[in-house]
Amino acid sequence: MRREHDLIGEMQIPSECYYGIQTLRAVHNFEITGVPISSMPELVHCLAYVKKAAALANLELGVLPSPIAKAVADACDEVIEGKLLGQFVVDVIQGGAGTSTNMNANEVIANRALELMGFEKGRYDVVHPLNHVNCSQSTNDVYPTAVRLALLMKLSGLMEEMTSLQESFTAKITEFADVIKIGRTQLQDAVPMTLGQEFSAYATTIGEDVQRVGEARELLLEINLGATAIGTGLNAPPDYARVVTRHLSGLTGLPLVTSANLIEATWDTGAYVQVSSVLKRVAVKLSKICNDLRLLSSGPRAGLGEINLPAVQPGSSIMPGKVNPVIPEVVNQVAYEVIGNDVTISFASEAGQLELNAMEPIIAFNLFRSIDMLGRSCRVLADKCVDGITANRERCRRMVENSISIVTALNPIIGYEKSSALAREALETDRSIYDLAIEKGVLSRETLDEILTPENMTHPRYLKRR
Amino acid sequence: MRREHDLIGEMQIPSECYYGIQTLRAVHNFEITGVPISSMPELVHCLAYVKKAAALANLELGVLPSPIAKAVADACDEVIEGKLLGQFVVDVIQGGAGTSTNMNANEVIANRALELMGFEKGRYDVVHPLNHVNCSQSTNDVYPTAVRLALLMKLSGLMEEMTSLQESFTAKITEFADVIKIGRTQLQDAVPMTLGQEFSAYATTIGEDVQRVGEARELLLEINLGATAIGTGLNAPPDYARVVTRHLSGLTGLPLVTSANLIEATWDTGAYVQVSSVLKRVAVKLSKICNDLRLLSSGPRAGLGEINLPAVQPGSSIMPGKVNPVIPEVVNQVAYEVIGNDVTISFASEAGQLELNAMEPIIAFNLFRSIDMLGRSCRVLADKCVDGITANRERCRRMVENSISIVTALNPIIGYEKSSALAREALETDRSIYDLAIEKGVLSRETLDEILTPENMTHPRYLKRR
Amino acid sequence: MRREHDLIGEMQIPSECYYGIQTLRAVHNFEITGVPISSMPELVHCLAYVKKAAALANLELGVLPSPIAKAVADACDEVIEGKLLGQFVVDVIQGGAGTSTNMNANEVIANRALELMGFEKGRYDVVHPLNHVNCSQSTNDVYPTAVRLALLMKLSGLMEEMTSLQESFTAKITEFADVIKIGRTQLQDAVPMTLGQEFSAYATTIGEDVQRVGEARELLLEINLGATAIGTGLNAPPDYARVVTRHLSGLTGLPLVTSANLIEATWDTGAYVQVSSVLKRVAVKLSKICNDLRLLSSGPRAGLGEINLPAVQPGSSIMPGKVNPVIPEVVNQVAYEVIGNDVTISFASEAGQLELNAMEPIIAFNLFRSIDMLGRSCRVLADKCVDGITANRERCRRMVENSISIVTALNPIIGYEKSSALAREALETDRSIYDLAIEKGVLSRETLDEILTPENMTHPRYLKRR
Amino acid sequence: MRREHDLIGEMQIPSECYYGIQTLRAVHNFEITGVPISSMPELVHCLAYVKKAAALANLELGVLPSPIAKAVADACDEVIEGKLLGQFVVDVIQGGAGTSTNMNANEVIANRALELMGFEKGRYDVVHPLNHVNCSQSTNDVYPTAVRLALLMKLSGLMEEMTSLQESFTAKITEFADVIKIGRTQLQDAVPMTLGQEFSAYATTIGEDVQRVGEARELLLEINLGATAIGTGLNAPPDYARVVTRHLSGLTGLPLVTSANLIEATWDTGAYVQVSSVLKRVAVKLSKICNDLRLLSSGPRAGLGEINLPAVQPGSSIMPGKVNPVIPEVVNQVAYEVIGNDVTISFASEAGQLELNAMEPIIAFNLFRSIDMLGRSCRVLADKCVDGITANRERCRRMVENSISIVTALNPIIGYEKSSALAREALETDRSIYDLAIEKGVLSRETLDEILTPENMTHPRYLKRR
Repeated sequence: MRREHDLIGEMQIPSECYYGIQTLRAVHNFEITGVPISSMPELVHCLAYVKKAAALANLELGVLPSPIAKAVADACDEVIEGKLLGQFVVDVIQGGAGTSTNMNANEVIANRALELMGFEKGRYDVVHPLNHVNCSQSTNDVYPTAVRLALLMKLSGLMEEMTSLQESFTAKITEFADVIKIGRTQLQDAVPMTLGQEFSAYATTIGEDVQRVGEARELLLEINLGATAIGTGLNAPPDYARVVTRHLSGLTGLPLVTSANLIEATWDTGAYVQVSSVLKRVAVKLSKICNDLRLLSSGPRAGLGEINLPAVQPGSSIMPGKVNPVIPEVVNQVAYEVIGNDVTISFASEAGQLELNAMEPIIAFNLFRSIDMLGRSCRVLADKCVDGITANRERCRRMVENSISIVTALNPIIGYEKSSALAREALETDRSIYDLAIEKGVLSRETLDEILTPENMTHPRYLKRR
Repeated sequence: MRREHDLIGEMQIPSECYYGIQTLRAVHNFEITGVPISSMPELVHCLAYVKKAAALANLELGVLPSPIAKAVADACDEVIEGKLLGQFVVDVIQGGAGTSTNMNANEVIANRALELMGFEKGRYDVVHPLNHVNCSQSTNDVYPTAVRLALLMKLSGLMEEMTSLQESFTAKITEFADVIKIGRTQLQDAVPMTLGQEFSAYATTIGEDVQRVGEARELLLEINLGATAIGTGLNAPPDYARVVTRHLSGLTGLPLVTSANLIEATWDTGAYVQVSSVLKRVAVKLSKICNDLRLLSSGPRAGLGEINLPAVQPGSSIMPGKVNPVIPEVVNQVAYEVIGNDVTISFASEAGQLELNAMEPIIAFNLFRSIDMLGRSCRVLADKCVDGITANRERCRRMVENSISIVTALNPIIGYEKSSALAREALETDRSIYDLAIEKGVLSRETLDEILTPENMTHPRYLKRR
Repeated sequence: MRREHDLIGEMQIPSECYYGIQTLRAVHNFEITGVPISSMPELVHCLAYVKKAAALANLELGVLPSPIAKAVADACDEVIEGKLLGQFVVDVIQGGAGTSTNMNANEVIANRALELMGFEKGRYDVVHPLNHVNCSQSTNDVYPTAVRLALLMKLSGLMEEMTSLQESFTAKITEFADVIKIGRTQLQDAVPMTLGQEFSAYATTIGEDVQRVGEARELLLEINLGATAIGTGLNAPPDYARVVTRHLSGLTGLPLVTSANLIEATWDTGAYVQVSSVLKRVAVKLSKICNDLRLLSSGPRAGLGEINLPAVQPGSSIMPGKVNPVIPEVVNQVAYEVIGNDVTISFASEAGQLELNAMEPIIAFNLFRSIDMLGRSCRVLADKCVDGITANRERCRRMVENSISIVTALNPIIGYEKSSALAREALETDRSIYDLAIEKGVLSRETLDEILTPENMTHPRYLKRR
Repeated sequence: MRREHDLIGEMQIPSECYYGIQTLRAVHNFEITGVPISSMPELVHCLAYVKKAAALANLELGVLPSPIAKAVADACDEVIEGKLLGQFVVDVIQGGAGTSTNMNANEVIANRALELMGFEKGRYDVVHPLNHVNCSQSTNDVYPTAVRLALLMKLSGLMEEMTSLQESFTAKITEFADVIKIGRTQLQDAVPMTLGQEFSAYATTIGEDVQRVGEARELLLEINLGATAIGTGLNAPPDYARVVTRHLSGLTGLPLVTSANLIEATWDTGAYVQVSSVLKRVAVKLSKICNDLRLLSSGPRAGLGEINLPAVQPGSSIMPGKVNPVIPEVVNQVAYEVIGNDVTISFASEAGQLELNAMEPIIAFNLFRSIDMLGRSCRVLADKCVDGITANRERCRRMVENSISIVTALNPIIGYEKSSALAREALETDRSIYDLAIEKGVLSRETLDEILTPENMTHPRYLKRR
């Protein structure tokens, strides 16, 4: 054990621990979820990127001695490589705007740097978590910068998963290009289309969402390193913001820029709100698509039954042979979770006060969860569901031929009111539009055959009006 | 025109106006929705009830001279009768915790009282909006009390509408008692039931919601009249809370009680949150029911087609003969609105600070809207949809007989695994469970006939296990 | 009275009415809010733009005779000019994906066109609401296009109001450039800044939001005219989408484009979700700013008291002389409303099914409300509050000089731990950092004077570290 | 390894695993959060209670042989004791309405029962997960019943934590009974009260919330065991519902009752919505209280500074000596999380379709999280914050004496307008109300002394009006 002290008093720290007294206090204070920040490894790595960039900038600007700066940078490299992850122990939900997360990093890095320099852990007279590791920094610029870096990386991953899902849908466009089916609006039979057209819409909409995610992600490239406590840059050398941002860009390969107004950037959580909103949009779309897949595959005999989802597990503990759309269902649930997270983030963002938003940890936690869950949902949906969807071609076509709403195609020729009357009679007498139209001599059989061929109804074309 | 003045300065008031300078300032300050509080007539009436009860209590306790108290009470009666409604002109969304609404009432009542006493409007030396009409009161006890009264009245109306809707569903239980249909879980064919059973669930669930609304409504009977500014009762005579509550109970016929802790009662918005939450619950349930009605009536030919909703208007500007489930759809939309309102109310409630919640106007506005829209939705849903629903009996029964999932009934006899195999074979070969089971000699024809009779599957019964 | 009939039967229409039977049915079906669509005049005007563009395209493509197309276009012009607004009577919340709104427009325009051609209203054999006014169209492309046009126009207005508010804050940057004050993080005293810096953040953040609104607005330029019922373009001539979009762009001056995938565009509500999300972001930011203004102006004697908001109305019915921050409060409430609306829109968007989203009316209604309320809030906040804010310079400076947290500036010189000890002693002994530091000889008086001059702490600078 | 098969095919199961093929499929299908259901141990235990009660009921009703029923019951006892928890491996977020959770339980219990009977795991011909462990059951009655039991237990725990927090506030009522302070409405100085009164409101409001939680908890006592697949009780013996509910009540000590309408009970999620709503209410209240604590303790020198929260950790990595209100802040964040969870639950509840709600897993997951986090928040708030709060008595009193708003007490004597004028003059001249009133001879010194004694303003009293 080693003794450490702070403003409040002294504590014993187990000698194997790289974290120190401030981390330990936070662990005791925030017994909320039992889940440590090591469950968000990207955040930990990005904290280390920030600390390394700061050390290099401080070295360059002459405010940190070379041996200390180098040891700190080396310790950061280890954290970036994934070592010491288990030392990041504070709860994911914590008071204090991320201070405990920052202190956890400062202490772990200081103690590892001490070891690398040949000292024992705890020799803060040599390398100090605050005076050295946190030099020219404040939680209020370090923490949001690390969160942004982690988001930038995670969002790239999400975009890849979304693109894969889009490709799964795209593959179905050709496969289902000649499956004629009835389109439905307001759950009522509408006019014909192909199943390929229907699936093309899913591919298109996900593609648009990838673009929206990408645009929101861009906002995160703006960081506030150099702001220190409240954006005035107190205790940072004048050129620090520029230099540290250059180092951090170099380390991460990301084209980071310094915010034009560091006061604003230090309390503003607008980029998080924007990202969360786009994740909500993705969730809403995915949920709609999954609702459609569940509708289209309803049955097997007393539903729409147009498509079959691959069977991935038995569906019921009581109904033998039942197979349920469990993959779309799990994606629906993830979507609801993401939408709820967005409300949480709205509340947390609105709670910012004056020069800071103390609620950033819950924002970060929810963004990370939303991204992770959406990414995995896209993968599961593509692999376990969309790729294996098959069509019931005959059934699809039969429903078109049997439908009343194909009378729509007669509309330009015979007008809305005669068409309506025909539709009503077909419904009341349980007959087909085609038979009725022939019987009544509405149009010649040739014309009718031509107009009512389902394929001819799946795109615009010239019809000679009466 | 007459001149009035306040803390800030002087203004000209048109002489026909019963409201005065403070109202006019508020009108100019809050140009937000353009909708005046007269659009919430129950609130206006209830303000008058409160003012009348206060006048009577002040008279009884000797802090208001009899002629003034009586004139004020008479003016209040006119407002309660619906006169002067057009004088309540401040915007429904306003800053200041309802002060402008209270001042609007104080001024209108003072000026009408003056007229009743034979004075000109504006003679505040005789009857003063604050010294007399607002005597022993503060916005902070008057406004929430009036809101609660209005909610109590409106919720009673909602409960009546909900009960009517419940009755509409109840009427269908008998009508559809012998319509055998397939039950569905996760949109997949499950086991048989009657359409009457399905509709009984809607009646039951609405009945439960009526109870929940009633319970939440009870919370509103607790009022804070006598709290004055912050709950300490400053400037109210000691017995005032008891006396004014007695008068108000007498006037409204409601068993009102004074809060045990007037400090808490003055900032607490918990009862509103509770009421809004129950309205949200009602909305969620109504939306689920409407989703079901739209699913069950999907078609007419390429959907589930088990029931028919009454046609209330042509459904499409392009598809002749199409009829859409527009009534359930409008109820869905109202439900979404109510759920959104609940989030608004959570935000507003959380924004209370120290001794008051300044955001009560938006809470009241949203509660009133939610109640109004839900009440009208229940009425429209009952009258224009549920009452006219008819069943497609033959189609319903055919889907049961054709279904694979009736194999479930064989489960206790032949076990889950054999049943599963039978189900799979039926699906793959497009045959019926009954035929396959006969062919394979799984059970005797008599036993099968008995077990697979749909009616026998709609309730528990003893089956001899193997 | 004139008689009209539809699929369902006949009705009597008052002869002065331009709307017809389908409108009247909808009025009876949707008694939900009592607020007609004429309360959203931009939507009505934009419907007329769409109908006019369609008439011109149909004329150009030879599917509508010239006299009819011209009369329809002329009738549309009248609607665009604001005439006939009172004829748009269906409820703002309605089932049917906007069909009733579209039919209201079709009927009003047909009847007005008939009059312009010298016929009586109701002569649908000459000009038919569906065969002619709705030619080559469906509600499913007309309604979303009109909604988008209206949003494009209204968002421009919002951006102007936001820019004005931004300018009001910008004007304060210079005015308050030399007001030294304490910055606060987590409501605790932090380090010095100027009030000008604090207000610059408000200007910056609103400026960023204007950009975000502008970007989301761009998405609305993509329209689906030509999609007809489900995006396949059935009953529209092949070139119709291109031609009608060209006409509509010409009429409105907006660079509209046709969606690349009309199937997707017909059910997709992603752009609405995006716009609503950005409005939510604006709301969250405005609310945070208003919370700050209320905090900074708290008092007048027992609060922070750094700034004074202009007094716009007396604040209390019981506390004489009290002035409340009613303008920020009303903006807070609008913000909560907008955030709730966003949840409503998420629900409505998720409820889309297959080829259509039937819930678009509630989406449009909420977007229009959010935009209107936010726009008015920005105006009120600028005019009635921000422009008149004054600073309490002396009090601001005194709080800095008296503060303990200025010890932060000593951090780079004497280290975190000595600074902490100094801070603790100052707090416990109720003394100033300056006096204590002098007394303990921590630094020379000259150095201290230089370092602790508040102005020197409001920006980065070089400090020689020990 | 052992081989198991199901409807879909065969899989290898590691021989040490108690779970079987259906569990393993679910593990592969739902790679969503990586968090297994064993993280919700109460749910696992309650599943075992349900399975045991079912075994006992099946034994009593003669549908399960005694040796099997007993072995199943014994295996359940082990799960209830916490053994085998690690075998509950399916993801907390899963498709399929809880089927995978139910199957996980069925398989673990069957295999453990087999062992207890002296057989190897996998001998499903002897004890079958479905035919025996799941006998007379369906996921659709087992899963919601287990969720309800778990909620009943967890909510009791939450109520205890809330009551402890209430007691912490109650202890402060006496401690702060004589601390005179200024009350504030709308963040503006209002009239005097005691700090004890202020804290009494917190105790009261939490006490009310305990009642509301208790009422909502009652709804969970209604269960649907015996409903089987869709509420018709198919495959359960007629008396099963009554008998199994009796056994389950006996095992758990809870007064459970069978739903009157099992069809409704099988799809209805209203009780969850109600519980979540009350948790949201608790969250909103806790957040408001924490906001207050942070306001009242703002400073230490440039804030309100009326109370001191205990210092639990250093507050800043850059500002030495700074102590932040991290405990209230973490509770705020938990509150936002709970409010977001409530929206998720609204979405999931609204997504129920026909005879089932497939989204129950996300509902259960969110309810469990909300309860756990709120419970821990209450404990942390009581132990680490409220218990250690101290008052700055002198500062509190000084702010009252210095305040302008005490002029309110003169209102009944000299009227609102003279009081207003006095207030304005005091503000403009920076003088005290008392001095000004004396100077102007408004009232005699004795009267003034009596009226303006702060203690006299903290409760109602008779004042002779002029």
